[in-house]
Amino acid sequence: MRVRKRKKAEEYLLEYPQLVVSQPDEWRGRWCNRFQNNHPIHIEVGCGKGRFITEMSKRNPDINYLGLDIQLSVLSYALDKVIAADVLNLQLLYVDGRELLNYFAENEISLIYLNFSDPWPKSRHEKRRLTYSSFLKIYEKILTPKGEVYLKTDNRGLFEYSLVSFSNYGMILRQIFLNLHASNFVDNVITEYEEKFINKGQVIYRVEAQFT
Amino acid sequence: MRVRKRKKAEEYLLEYPQLVVSQPDEWRGRWCNRFQNNHPIHIEVGCGKGRFITEMSKRNPDINYLGLDIQLSVLSYALDKVIAADVLNLQLLYVDGRELLNYFAENEISLIYLNFSDPWPKSRHEKRRLTYSSFLKIYEKILTPKGEVYLKTDNRGLFEYSLVSFSNYGMILRQIFLNLHASNFVDNVITEYEEKFINKGQVIYRVEAQFT
Repeated sequence: MRVRKRKKAEEYLLEYPQLVVSQPDEWRGRWCNRFQNNHPIHIEVGCGKGRFITEMSKRNPDINYLGLDIQLSVLSYALDKVIAADVLNLQLLYVDGRELLNYFAENEISLIYLNFSDPWPKSRHEKRRLTYSSFLKIYEKILTPKGEVYLKTDNRGLFEYSLVSFSNYGMILRQIFLNLHASNFVDNVITEYEEKFINKGQVIYRVEAQFT
Repeated sequence: MRVRKRKKAEEYLLEYPQLVVSQPDEWRGRWCNRFQNNHPIHIEVGCGKGRFITEMSKRNPDINYLGLDIQLSVLSYALDKVIAADVLNLQLLYVDGRELLNYFAENEISLIYLNFSDPWPKSRHEKRRLTYSSFLKIYEKILTPKGEVYLKTDNRGLFEYSLVSFSNYGMILRQIFLNLHASNFVDNVITEYEEKFINKGQVIYRVEAQFT
């Protein structure tokens, strides 16, 4: 996401250690302690400016949410929303989504959201796509048995690729929408990206994939 | 497909018993005898006016093709093309696609084409969709191990439904195209329907699903 660089983003994030986890590897395997309950944990890999995950946390107080992003500036905008939301079940991690195993133990997560991930359209960048088999292997590890990945994107190529990748991995596909906003799907929470794309008249694709 | 009713369609079809199989149940389990070779057999369930299956038979002389349709008038137009093609590897069946088990023995077919099948959009008609689980069960029986179903449609609802249905059945999905004619897929053979839809600017969906 191209955003205006925010000055002093890092200092800002450091000011809220209770909302932005400073040493996420230290909580590996005991996130329930951090949240002080045993509610299921859902993560968004690439939470961007945080609109989606913040709204989800407000709608579902019995689920703990972690928003992950590798971009400091972007995450600082997410922090604005997290502060405003004033909820107990949402925190942010300034981390690289490729290193999930450093931050989460086996079976620790119930659901992974991938919203408008980088499509990496060139074949030679296939391995960077967040639905490449090596990522699915990581997701399967940190997810509870029969854990799920919910994917939403405007990118046709990434969606086609992801459906095949999920299927090849033996995952079961559900709730496939090839034009989400023309569908009867009612629980959609719109991301910042999504709003832009809808306004341009682009279709949004969505799928739920479950490990077996 | 709504077509002008052709007078004497039945008489016409009966005139060509070598091209239009009059008693298809009699060939169950021994279609190789009818074709007088052991080439793989591919069928199109709902071949319509026959453009697709005729072109396929010309391109692939080492594969035997059977075009099935339940509409007499439509099939008579397909016969025009079959006669013109003058090939040895293509025949037509005037049958109900729901009764495939009457016409084919286990493992007798290598590939099933579903092109622009009736979408049956109403939920209460789900069981009529040619990708409903009961049909997949039939396909699995008549197909060779790891047999495949290739689906092409302009109907978003049917495509979404079919992907989920294939996946739930444990089939592996490949070659998913959410806008076939904007893709790099090179071997596409266009059907009569498809041409109409392309001309209207509609997208065509395509998937290959394999039994495991």
